[in-house]
Amino acid sequence: MKIGIIGAGQLGRMLALAGYPLGSRFRFLDRSSDAPGAQVGEIVLGRFDDAEQLAALANSVDLMTFDVENVPADLLYDIADKINFLPPVPALETAQDRLREKRLFAELEIPTPRWQPVDSLDALHAAVDDIDLPAIVKTCRLGYDGRGQTVLRKLEDLQPAWERFAGVPLILEQFVRYEREVSIIGVRSTEGETAYYALTENVHEHGILRHSLAPYDVPNLQRLAEKYLQRVFDRYDYAGVLTIEFFVIDGKLVANEIAPRVHNSGHWTIEGAVTSQFENHIRAIRGLPLGDTSGLGHAAMVNFLGQLPVLEPVLAIRGAHYHDYGKSPRPMRKLGHCTITAETAAARDEGLLSLLALVG
Amino acid sequence: MKIGIIGAGQLGRMLALAGYPLGSRFRFLDRSSDAPGAQVGEIVLGRFDDAEQLAALANSVDLMTFDVENVPADLLYDIADKINFLPPVPALETAQDRLREKRLFAELEIPTPRWQPVDSLDALHAAVDDIDLPAIVKTCRLGYDGRGQTVLRKLEDLQPAWERFAGVPLILEQFVRYEREVSIIGVRSTEGETAYYALTENVHEHGILRHSLAPYDVPNLQRLAEKYLQRVFDRYDYAGVLTIEFFVIDGKLVANEIAPRVHNSGHWTIEGAVTSQFENHIRAIRGLPLGDTSGLGHAAMVNFLGQLPVLEPVLAIRGAHYHDYGKSPRPMRKLGHCTITAETAAARDEGLLSLLALVG
Repeated sequence: MKIGIIGAGQLGRMLALAGYPLGSRFRFLDRSSDAPGAQVGEIVLGRFDDAEQLAALANSVDLMTFDVENVPADLLYDIADKINFLPPVPALETAQDRLREKRLFAELEIPTPRWQPVDSLDALHAAVDDIDLPAIVKTCRLGYDGRGQTVLRKLEDLQPAWERFAGVPLILEQFVRYEREVSIIGVRSTEGETAYYALTENVHEHGILRHSLAPYDVPNLQRLAEKYLQRVFDRYDYAGVLTIEFFVIDGKLVANEIAPRVHNSGHWTIEGAVTSQFENHIRAIRGLPLGDTSGLGHAAMVNFLGQLPVLEPVLAIRGAHYHDYGKSPRPMRKLGHCTITAETAAARDEGLLSLLALVG
Repeated sequence: MKIGIIGAGQLGRMLALAGYPLGSRFRFLDRSSDAPGAQVGEIVLGRFDDAEQLAALANSVDLMTFDVENVPADLLYDIADKINFLPPVPALETAQDRLREKRLFAELEIPTPRWQPVDSLDALHAAVDDIDLPAIVKTCRLGYDGRGQTVLRKLEDLQPAWERFAGVPLILEQFVRYEREVSIIGVRSTEGETAYYALTENVHEHGILRHSLAPYDVPNLQRLAEKYLQRVFDRYDYAGVLTIEFFVIDGKLVANEIAPRVHNSGHWTIEGAVTSQFENHIRAIRGLPLGDTSGLGHAAMVNFLGQLPVLEPVLAIRGAHYHDYGKSPRPMRKLGHCTITAETAAARDEGLLSLLALVG
């Protein structure tokens, strides 16, 4: 069973490391022969929008998935006509576009901050009249890790924001004050089996995930998050891992965005759950029984951004699991992560503090 | 940090899968470009006694280790003069020869069954006079998984046994009746740090490991086994994972053999311990702090010999972790294994029974 993965980043690499024991083999499409995934699998060199190389990959594997979201959907529809491509392209196409995404949430009655589509400066003014300031203007496409968005605090911010993003479709969102950010990660197999991980609490900085804590153990929110995820599963006859990020506002879940893939906030599942999100993604798209998503105690995950900490003091922390993605350093680039596992939340928090002191 | 591994079997493959997250890269020496390790790393093609290819591997990596024991020690001493080669060659050389091994146990006051070296038919008769029948005659070298040995039950068995193995050094061992077989796996780093896993109970069939259960929770035997392992560590200024297999006789430990490497009876540590034997071997030889060897509940490991069971029913067992080594089938060949993890011994045993029913 050879699986093709579009993108050989850290997600693809961790999918391969989890999938080899299940007898899968892996071939990636990526621009770099030394990409994290290419170091542990075969590589087809090419851009993610190179139809020829996408076809070359599709013709040489049994099943296809992706680790990057920004692949032109029309090319993927062509591939999905010829080969098993999962998660379904319509789910990916929705995640690529904030307007489609918000409309999906509305259709499925999943609460979101208030929003308005914006396609002109007049429309931006009208949207601000409706939603009020402060508000966030975001590009509909190609935004991630805090890019492609800006906060509007006063009326004078509107024109510069419009000019900054001029020409691309935008969305204005209510600026919400939330108690915390959490995410739910679930998995559905091609056989229709579903399983859910514990809610994870996420701490962002400048729009990039810094660290996560699991479980975020609030049973009524867990049930609600699973119910919302189930609606997305059903909507797309989904297969694979799926993530929804939420704000917690007044003790309620308000959806921020979906990711139709394994997710940074689920990296703790490698050591902190019976079966990781990576193995379950492979099981799901291959149509195999899903693995147990139960947690093993308490976990914290810290991203290494821009530079890797020295290995020795990190590994000296009890229950530390180090993940070097094999990337060259670049400011704010995700180069690796470390998960701390412990039997108690207190021991986990102690390990997390030691780790954060090393990361700076 | 590129690590060279002599032999690209399942042990090398699992070392690589555990070592990538620590930022290690892997290059193997093996005769097959589709060996289990070669599927997940780089390969240098050659036999294990090919001095030229061994040197080619040594010249292209930062550190060397092995997954096969049967590499001529004189070639390894040459390599160890030029590059960091761990575990130490003298430990491997001892494990390659039952006579050296028994003398080591005697020197370190680790109990064994009674034994005698045999280099002639007369010496065999004399040894049988001393040790009594039944007894086992074994070749000193190249015996593993039950090969290179035969049981002597009556005096008429001596001559055929001598003729069968004629010309190679032999050892006669007392045939012991034991309650069970257990193994201790420990790890020592180049910095002198040590850690030990829980004793594992092993069930063999025709000399090949069929399944293991951990922990074998008998505190005084655990302490004793660790003490014995510590003596071997000290004797060789050891670095890496080391295993001793014991018989339990009248509630006491009697050593059978050592393996200066990760061991089949420790495969359960991948999911059943905080840090696996594979990751700890890499940490140890790189001189990194060792990972926590604590167990996570109860584990059982079943070897897949000769053929792999169908994936779906195995994965449907709660807490099942499947490991396909990517090998082609051959009678009694180790093709993979499955570990069952559970919070209680009872749940683990229930999973084990389901799994054994599928393996046949």
